[in-house]
Amino acid sequence: MTLETLKQVVLEANLALVRKGLVFMTWGNASAIDRERGLIVIKPSGVPYETMRAEQMVAVDIEGAVVEGELKPSVDTATHLVLYKAFGDVGGIVHTHSHYATVWAQAGLAIPCFGTTHADHFYGEVPVTEGLTAEEVAGDYERSIGEAIVRRYAEMNPMEHPAVLAAQHGPFTWGATLGKAVENALALEEVARMALDTVRLAPDTPPIGPYLLTKHFLRKHGGEAYYGQQ
Amino acid sequence: MTLETLKQVVLEANLALVRKGLVFMTWGNASAIDRERGLIVIKPSGVPYETMRAEQMVAVDIEGAVVEGELKPSVDTATHLVLYKAFGDVGGIVHTHSHYATVWAQAGLAIPCFGTTHADHFYGEVPVTEGLTAEEVAGDYERSIGEAIVRRYAEMNPMEHPAVLAAQHGPFTWGATLGKAVENALALEEVARMALDTVRLAPDTPPIGPYLLTKHFLRKHGGEAYYGQQ
Amino acid sequence: MTLETLKQVVLEANLALVRKGLVFMTWGNASAIDRERGLIVIKPSGVPYETMRAEQMVAVDIEGAVVEGELKPSVDTATHLVLYKAFGDVGGIVHTHSHYATVWAQAGLAIPCFGTTHADHFYGEVPVTEGLTAEEVAGDYERSIGEAIVRRYAEMNPMEHPAVLAAQHGPFTWGATLGKAVENALALEEVARMALDTVRLAPDTPPIGPYLLTKHFLRKHGGEAYYGQQ
Amino acid sequence: MTLETLKQVVLEANLALVRKGLVFMTWGNASAIDRERGLIVIKPSGVPYETMRAEQMVAVDIEGAVVEGELKPSVDTATHLVLYKAFGDVGGIVHTHSHYATVWAQAGLAIPCFGTTHADHFYGEVPVTEGLTAEEVAGDYERSIGEAIVRRYAEMNPMEHPAVLAAQHGPFTWGATLGKAVENALALEEVARMALDTVRLAPDTPPIGPYLLTKHFLRKHGGEAYYGQQ
Repeated sequence: MTLETLKQVVLEANLALVRKGLVFMTWGNASAIDRERGLIVIKPSGVPYETMRAEQMVAVDIEGAVVEGELKPSVDTATHLVLYKAFGDVGGIVHTHSHYATVWAQAGLAIPCFGTTHADHFYGEVPVTEGLTAEEVAGDYERSIGEAIVRRYAEMNPMEHPAVLAAQHGPFTWGATLGKAVENALALEEVARMALDTVRLAPDTPPIGPYLLTKHFLRKHGGEAYYGQQ
Repeated sequence: MTLETLKQVVLEANLALVRKGLVFMTWGNASAIDRERGLIVIKPSGVPYETMRAEQMVAVDIEGAVVEGELKPSVDTATHLVLYKAFGDVGGIVHTHSHYATVWAQAGLAIPCFGTTHADHFYGEVPVTEGLTAEEVAGDYERSIGEAIVRRYAEMNPMEHPAVLAAQHGPFTWGATLGKAVENALALEEVARMALDTVRLAPDTPPIGPYLLTKHFLRKHGGEAYYGQQ
Repeated sequence: MTLETLKQVVLEANLALVRKGLVFMTWGNASAIDRERGLIVIKPSGVPYETMRAEQMVAVDIEGAVVEGELKPSVDTATHLVLYKAFGDVGGIVHTHSHYATVWAQAGLAIPCFGTTHADHFYGEVPVTEGLTAEEVAGDYERSIGEAIVRRYAEMNPMEHPAVLAAQHGPFTWGATLGKAVENALALEEVARMALDTVRLAPDTPPIGPYLLTKHFLRKHGGEAYYGQQ
Repeated sequence: MTLETLKQVVLEANLALVRKGLVFMTWGNASAIDRERGLIVIKPSGVPYETMRAEQMVAVDIEGAVVEGELKPSVDTATHLVLYKAFGDVGGIVHTHSHYATVWAQAGLAIPCFGTTHADHFYGEVPVTEGLTAEEVAGDYERSIGEAIVRRYAEMNPMEHPAVLAAQHGPFTWGATLGKAVENALALEEVARMALDTVRLAPDTPPIGPYLLTKHFLRKHGGEAYYGQQ
């Protein structure tokens, strides 16, 4: 894939997030990585979506130095870089302030797995990070958000849990491709909304059992999957 | 009705579920049966709705063997087959993860009949199945979902209660025709949403009395119906 | 206004209710009265909105006898007739199952006046009727709904309170014209939604004081009104 | 900017509020000030949005006398004038009855800052005024609403807190330009909705710490801002 194509892919993902209702105003960003060339392409900071063009996407190296592009990259670039470094199978990352996922993030609560809709996409609860300290916020803030996420995944496979809530902030999702990261952002938002209404209806609802969770996640993921046309 | 026409009907029902907001991503499926020929036509598994065509609909016999079609049928086909076998008057079946019905399913709660909107469509509460055992999930999972539904109807007429919640999963609806099954799926979603907001507003709201329930259901159904132009 | 014009007005009001989201499926009806000729024009029963035409509107006299039209009038015609008889200033009536107003009706609760949005349209709480007895339901049901409404207005001016909730059923609104009745149905739905979220946020919220209620209602209604261009 | 251009700007802001869903029916108004000429341009009272034209905008002086325009200005003009007098950096003002902000206003509660979405736009909780007395309502009502807002800002910088809730009424927002005031109205509505769902999910959620609040507000505002392309 050429850099031009990658920029087009990143543009279209950013626009899809708006069109699907996950990004309001300029509250979000999407990026993709070309691991062979060591390049990350990400949305520029604070540019209106109505006039955004592929040429405006910014290419940075894994340390964040701008390689190509005339605009400043997203303020959240440092968070994306930490995740690309730590999670070697990730090809694309999405950050939004989508309503329901953000509500769980603001409450500082992981999203329990209450049903098969959730289990089809995420292999257990959607985790939430710990809040940052005053020192982390005052220091390299955006990098610290990424590090808090990575700490949370010390004992989890990020490809089985491709969505996380940054406490008091909002969700990040990822996938083997950016398209898959967008799909996970969409699934997360509906799962977050279903879970919120479920606890409002019946606060003591238990999460589903491990056999049902495993059945549904593996029906769609991994070598034994039998959903779809593969 | 020719097989080609039936495929068209099934395609259009599946697309209507997306257009009306009951199916998000690929979370749902609709089927219809030709009882004379012993054929069930159902949506293929995991095919994107944007490009779905009538020729892609899959025809299976009542045991699930593919009779015509090049794609794999929906993973939920076995559930549909159990219902067609047990409920002889059913001509079409719809399964979705529509938001509000799924919330009640996740909470494991039947939807009480709180008003005439509900009573116009469903003759009493919308039932919920028992959860499946680990053995059922590990075994022939999709068939077990159907069997749990049939067990729930041991003492109920499925045509008077054309909607059910599969626990921790989501709703199934049906009707004499697939068009009627889609209509019931739409009515169910709004009824589920009304009931959720009703219990939030006034948790102790009682269901409506049997005289009002019967009045409304029979105003629209059966030989004494006087709603509409019949 | 000719009968043809009146039919057109009634058709357009019925279609507006669908377009504005107050009527789902065929759950609603609107009518208008020509008091000089003693004619009420109302929607036919259970006809799909997509193909509804002005000629299909049904004209009945004040006792409900069909004067012109080939279709059966709405099953709720008897309710409308009782209201036209009792409330001499009413020119048009709207009945819907709009979501939030119906939720309050299902809970059997009047909608308190929590703010100026409400006070701009309704001069105090939106009342709810008492539930019908088994005898009323078994007898002339639709007429009894109207009579329960009229009883509720024994000491209220219907033009100052142009919206009511029929318990366990849904809202009726009216106005000097059918256009005004549609406007009141729209205002009612948003007021009902605001009030529901207000009691969820703060269950002990008091209604606004009588001075603020009177100020806002009279700013828009009656001889001292100074809102708008009159 | 000519008066014609200013009228066009004010028209477009009023239409944007409807298009974005913040204004329902005619429940809202937007104005802008030309401080050099001492002119405020505001929407006329109760005119339907469908046919509203720039020429219909009304220009008044700082005391409210109509300088140009044939229609009556918004009934809320006096409120706008008080704010323009007291807050010298404000260039445009928006008043709506947008759903979620109005719910907090009806409950008489300030909106806590539960996350970074809020902190990106408002430097702490969104304040609520005290309710008006019977005397204030009976007297110069609309002016008293403005004065209650100004009293609430005795120790706050209005440019750091560009949104306020008028108790039992609804929100007012402002900005250096009318475009910025509209943007703040949009941000306020989503922030109000997020906060409502957050307290429903977890009633004891604390506001974010001062370090995170300051970090996010100053990332987008003031001399140290590094968000966007400035």
